[in-house]
Amino acid sequence: MQQDRFSAVSSNTKRQDAIEKVTGHAKYTGDLALPGLLEGKVLRSAFPHALIESVDTHKAEALHGVVAVLTRDDLKDIDPYYGHCLRDRPLIAIDRVRYIGEPVAVVAAENREAAEAALSLIEVHYKELPYLANVDDALAEGAPLIHENLSGVGEFHEMGGVGEKFKSNVCHHEHFEKGDADKGFAEADEIIEETYEFPMIYHYTMEPHTTIAKYSREGISLWTSSAHPFLVRAEIAHMFGLPHSRVEVVVPYVGGAFGGKSYFKIEPMVVAMARKTAGRPVRVAQSVAESMLTIRRHSAKCRIKTGVMRDGSIVAREAEVMMDTGAYADNGPRVAKRAANRIHGPYKIKHCKIDVVAVYTNTVPAGSMRSIGGPQTIWPLESHMDSIAERLGIDPLEFRLKNFLRSGEELRAGAKAMDADLAVGLKEAAACIGWGDIERAPGRGLGIAVGVTDSEAMPVSVALVRLLADGSVMVMAGSTEVGQGTRTILSQIAAEELDVPVERVTMQGTNTSSTPFDRSTGASRSTTVMGNAVKAAAEDLRQQIIDAAAEVLRVDQNNIELKEGEVICGNKRLGYGKIVALFFGMPGGELIGRGYIRPGGGMGTQLPVFWETGMGGVDLNVDTETGSVKLNKYVSVADVGKAINPAQCEGQDEGAAIQGLGHTMFEALSYDNGQLLNPNLIDYRVPSITDLPVVFESKLVENRDGPGPYGAKGMGESGIVSIAPAIGNAIAQATGVRIRDLPLTPERVWRALKNAKRG
Amino acid sequence: MQQDRFSAVSSNTKRQDAIEKVTGHAKYTGDLALPGLLEGKVLRSAFPHALIESVDTHKAEALHGVVAVLTRDDLKDIDPYYGHCLRDRPLIAIDRVRYIGEPVAVVAAENREAAEAALSLIEVHYKELPYLANVDDALAEGAPLIHENLSGVGEFHEMGGVGEKFKSNVCHHEHFEKGDADKGFAEADEIIEETYEFPMIYHYTMEPHTTIAKYSREGISLWTSSAHPFLVRAEIAHMFGLPHSRVEVVVPYVGGAFGGKSYFKIEPMVVAMARKTAGRPVRVAQSVAESMLTIRRHSAKCRIKTGVMRDGSIVAREAEVMMDTGAYADNGPRVAKRAANRIHGPYKIKHCKIDVVAVYTNTVPAGSMRSIGGPQTIWPLESHMDSIAERLGIDPLEFRLKNFLRSGEELRAGAKAMDADLAVGLKEAAACIGWGDIERAPGRGLGIAVGVTDSEAMPVSVALVRLLADGSVMVMAGSTEVGQGTRTILSQIAAEELDVPVERVTMQGTNTSSTPFDRSTGASRSTTVMGNAVKAAAEDLRQQIIDAAAEVLRVDQNNIELKEGEVICGNKRLGYGKIVALFFGMPGGELIGRGYIRPGGGMGTQLPVFWETGMGGVDLNVDTETGSVKLNKYVSVADVGKAINPAQCEGQDEGAAIQGLGHTMFEALSYDNGQLLNPNLIDYRVPSITDLPVVFESKLVENRDGPGPYGAKGMGESGIVSIAPAIGNAIAQATGVRIRDLPLTPERVWRALKNAKRG
Repeated sequence: MQQDRFSAVSSNTKRQDAIEKVTGHAKYTGDLALPGLLEGKVLRSAFPHALIESVDTHKAEALHGVVAVLTRDDLKDIDPYYGHCLRDRPLIAIDRVRYIGEPVAVVAAENREAAEAALSLIEVHYKELPYLANVDDALAEGAPLIHENLSGVGEFHEMGGVGEKFKSNVCHHEHFEKGDADKGFAEADEIIEETYEFPMIYHYTMEPHTTIAKYSREGISLWTSSAHPFLVRAEIAHMFGLPHSRVEVVVPYVGGAFGGKSYFKIEPMVVAMARKTAGRPVRVAQSVAESMLTIRRHSAKCRIKTGVMRDGSIVAREAEVMMDTGAYADNGPRVAKRAANRIHGPYKIKHCKIDVVAVYTNTVPAGSMRSIGGPQTIWPLESHMDSIAERLGIDPLEFRLKNFLRSGEELRAGAKAMDADLAVGLKEAAACIGWGDIERAPGRGLGIAVGVTDSEAMPVSVALVRLLADGSVMVMAGSTEVGQGTRTILSQIAAEELDVPVERVTMQGTNTSSTPFDRSTGASRSTTVMGNAVKAAAEDLRQQIIDAAAEVLRVDQNNIELKEGEVICGNKRLGYGKIVALFFGMPGGELIGRGYIRPGGGMGTQLPVFWETGMGGVDLNVDTETGSVKLNKYVSVADVGKAINPAQCEGQDEGAAIQGLGHTMFEALSYDNGQLLNPNLIDYRVPSITDLPVVFESKLVENRDGPGPYGAKGMGESGIVSIAPAIGNAIAQATGVRIRDLPLTPERVWRALKNAKRG
Repeated sequence: MQQDRFSAVSSNTKRQDAIEKVTGHAKYTGDLALPGLLEGKVLRSAFPHALIESVDTHKAEALHGVVAVLTRDDLKDIDPYYGHCLRDRPLIAIDRVRYIGEPVAVVAAENREAAEAALSLIEVHYKELPYLANVDDALAEGAPLIHENLSGVGEFHEMGGVGEKFKSNVCHHEHFEKGDADKGFAEADEIIEETYEFPMIYHYTMEPHTTIAKYSREGISLWTSSAHPFLVRAEIAHMFGLPHSRVEVVVPYVGGAFGGKSYFKIEPMVVAMARKTAGRPVRVAQSVAESMLTIRRHSAKCRIKTGVMRDGSIVAREAEVMMDTGAYADNGPRVAKRAANRIHGPYKIKHCKIDVVAVYTNTVPAGSMRSIGGPQTIWPLESHMDSIAERLGIDPLEFRLKNFLRSGEELRAGAKAMDADLAVGLKEAAACIGWGDIERAPGRGLGIAVGVTDSEAMPVSVALVRLLADGSVMVMAGSTEVGQGTRTILSQIAAEELDVPVERVTMQGTNTSSTPFDRSTGASRSTTVMGNAVKAAAEDLRQQIIDAAAEVLRVDQNNIELKEGEVICGNKRLGYGKIVALFFGMPGGELIGRGYIRPGGGMGTQLPVFWETGMGGVDLNVDTETGSVKLNKYVSVADVGKAINPAQCEGQDEGAAIQGLGHTMFEALSYDNGQLLNPNLIDYRVPSITDLPVVFESKLVENRDGPGPYGAKGMGESGIVSIAPAIGNAIAQATGVRIRDLPLTPERVWRALKNAKRG
């Protein structure tokens, strides 16, 4: 029987971290001070591809205040290579550098000034190699290999057989085929083929990557702005040859992650530096510019071809997505894997053939970013859907509704069937912008787009919920608070299950020495997967409260009711804390509930655990003289299954849409001669408050069809994918011109309109 | 079936903290550095008893570097009174001071120099009151009352009805009676009555009391040299009006406790100071002299009277123990309660009447110290036993053996029956010193004594044991590492249950935010009570490993064997970590075992959970010219039930005996005019290596009759109680003179011999 009334859930509970954050008291990694803390600064490669002939640190080491300099010579007794998919990346450059910005040496000094001054005293001799500026260069005949040997494979690949030598610059090739594409195209009434491009994007988090490491005989302690502390623990343990129990990863508040703090970034380098400073901890707090040289989103070029029948049904699709994964694999293979399903889209297609290739180039490594592989594929896919509808003369809304996978239908064999009613959300988005009602006017256009992705929320989380003898409740869960509000959500879930006021529940930051294992924070998994673990732990605790109450009150369990933090039994009412005290025979003791979530254990056996579903609708005007676009209204619809905290859901969804507005209208990392031209927030412009649509709405669909607690499903990523194609489609409607590159700057729109007139 | 073969248990496993400690890397509270840490210094009363008329801090506050000064004016919105037994103590003096050394104000400054300088700028006007120097003064007709009102009662008293006003200076009166003492004495052939005294003793821990507190909107964090962090949490939460979940108590290594760090010492004062410093943490690191003004062991005067039959059987006992509990109750009531059983002793006595009175005086508060109430009562009791034997002309060994409670016999109704075979240990001690064999020579004497006490090990502990995906194991248990080696012992227990190499198991310090509840570290309870909790948690985990292995290997549980960290199933051998990984479907996840121990839950329903049992035997020479005593041999026998780590057991037992040697031969706090004369380590002399007996042995008795893991029982306290009476008995044997005061300094011995000659 489905629960219909909620106490803590469905409520806009105030964020636990609200006061701390708005008053500036909240502590991030960079705010921490440790005794003897040294400041670390990184010398970075100025060449996109070069052999390192020598590194001379004598002058730097002699500088007053410098404690130690880390170079490739310090890595001999460890495994210096790391990587979640492929162990292709040394913690600092060893034999060669592969992109401008790659760390070559690190200085640890008594203060930042000394560390910075020492950098210019390090003498590095390079021998330049030909560099590969982009995917085309990297795949060209006779191109030099960026990687020739591979140190090992990580979790992603460890089941498969990946060769130990690269024979090309292809980092990963994902192929997905069903039916017979050639046959499908042969049957089709119309074939539409287009090519789209998506730029390199930076995550821009308020907090750049920051790590403090301490290395002692007893083990390694890390304080880091990481969203994946348990994976960091495992990787550091592997590299430095320690058991997991001797690597402690502490994550205070994190100032935004968006995938940019997934897996391992600067942690291995900082640990290696700390290993050299005789037990003194070392902090590396990167600047925004340095973080822009640390990780980015993949750029992509996508050729998409679809065969359709006159009646609007899709019969065949072929797609080829070339992704620039940069100098190191990072999460590129997984991004490619996800992109393959995403370019297919949530439509019924009988025949398809999809290839996604992640290619090494001599640029900043690309990895996870909010909806991995999503924007790069849904921008072409959903633009293309409108192009097809236009060719067929069918309303784009009708065209999509006709082809949608219905709930229960499969996108690909073996994967979990669609679990959402997509029509509901899309109709809602369309209705909100007055689709079909609004009067057409010159320069005005409406656009819609669908953002459905298979989240790769790994269903592995462990949680504890502790009831103390004063009735207060502590949630111990490894979801990191990256700004998304997870501590509040998980506390609401525990409060709901235990029926206690949510104010009694607290959750602290992650410390892998005491917080139980969680796979990671990302892929929209904290509410669904960790939420289920917390729910299971709270249910376990609830039963223990009942058992304890039955024992101490000497009554049957069936006579016990739990309500608002009290055990009710006849006319007796005792606070939970009192039950704990009676159970332990003193005003102390505690009861601990435990929850495990794992594949097959509570969340089904098929991946994805949920389909992440959102829709976008836009009403805009294009100034055809200047190419500038004015957003009259944007509506983002997120199918959240069940909103544990509606205000937080809306906040996340709006945030995602605005982040998507960035890559739609403004953002792109620009390279020239292997050099990133705009690693700063002046030349790389992110949306500001003045860029918001005049009317901006987030709508939540709550069908309670998710696998998370109370029917919740993951959200917060879908909002980023629909906005670009929705805007592109509206511009096409407004101007008759289809633009296939991002961002849609006034210059690009103006040029497109001019070229269209000319053409 | 009793387990006979052990892997990790019974082994002299190297201490986990050995390297850290011998290399000086181990961190104690005073070694911690926090950003913005202020230094706190305490202004102490120079009067033993006085009203405080005014406290003027203006000049002190104006001093450069001073951040804030805490006075009684800062306590208005909290409950400033604390105490585990009685809430009789304000965190700093309010209306009056009650002993020289009592905190009157605290300065928090940027550095120690400024804080110290400011102390002399605080102007306090006192109005002196008559002071009560000792128990006799305090109980005299018309004596002023030291306490008139009581703020509240703590855990110890909260079940009983304690009056809210004191009508005398009696802090606690414990009365214990069985049979009819008058009748017993009337029947006795002989009645022996003596009076003994025991001095005030200081714990002398290497680390004086040190606390850092931080007070913020989010709650209170404490780092403190405490042995009772969970009780500190509860008391601070009560005083400052916060839920337990918002008070975090962290205990790094503690440099010795011996009861001096039990319950609450300087923590409430430091928290109140930190509340005034706008979020900046404050450290108070006391000097040894200050800690000598913080807590001590009760002095006692004991009148003991025994009625015996000619055949050596005891028929009646009467005892009156007057204990000086100082200015505040601290743990005095509990010490008095324990003393009542201890003066009875482990002998069959039909009729008895015992009164123990803890009396307030204007001296440093007295509280727990290793074997609470033990040395003060067993010194008279076991001396008295020899006096009786002498009167009856019976060998003291035979006399004791005749009267011992046998295993299973009760000391008092309702209490757990004797659980040890006392004869074994005493015979061993006697044999080791050649009792009955050694030739008598002038000035040479042998002495034996029995130290049996009812430990008040509260049976409330919770533990978690975590198995990580690399097979490493983490024990989460709130026993604080005060130097006794508990982390090693508990790790051995977990290793034994799980059958993993002990090196794979680690245990960290206590942090109440993540470590499960433990009642306290003390009363020899960590190995027995927490040991059982860890064992239960490990058993739970072991079963989970078996369940998981059965699931992932698709076999019946009965086909699975766990051995040396591996799951064995047919010819398959998989490390535990691999089972975790397969269970969670990725190289991560963890399994968590949980163990609760509570009265009736696994450790029987009667207290004490075990009788702590030890014996002492000494062979010595007295230089009758100088009164100096030379210890030829001392043997301490400890009945440990089962030694988890024999080397650690011997180390603890030897340490206890040497600490007892201190109060036997050297130590006493001296008061004159309400002033402690020797609060320093020059005038208060503790034993050094040159004071050791020529031959010094510790013998362990292992009958596996304890309630702890594998039959272990608590130990480490018994060694301190037997040494004084054993030495006193040997001196009596050597010289024919019975000395009834401690310490047995050459001067005291010489005077006693001189007086005896004269008399």
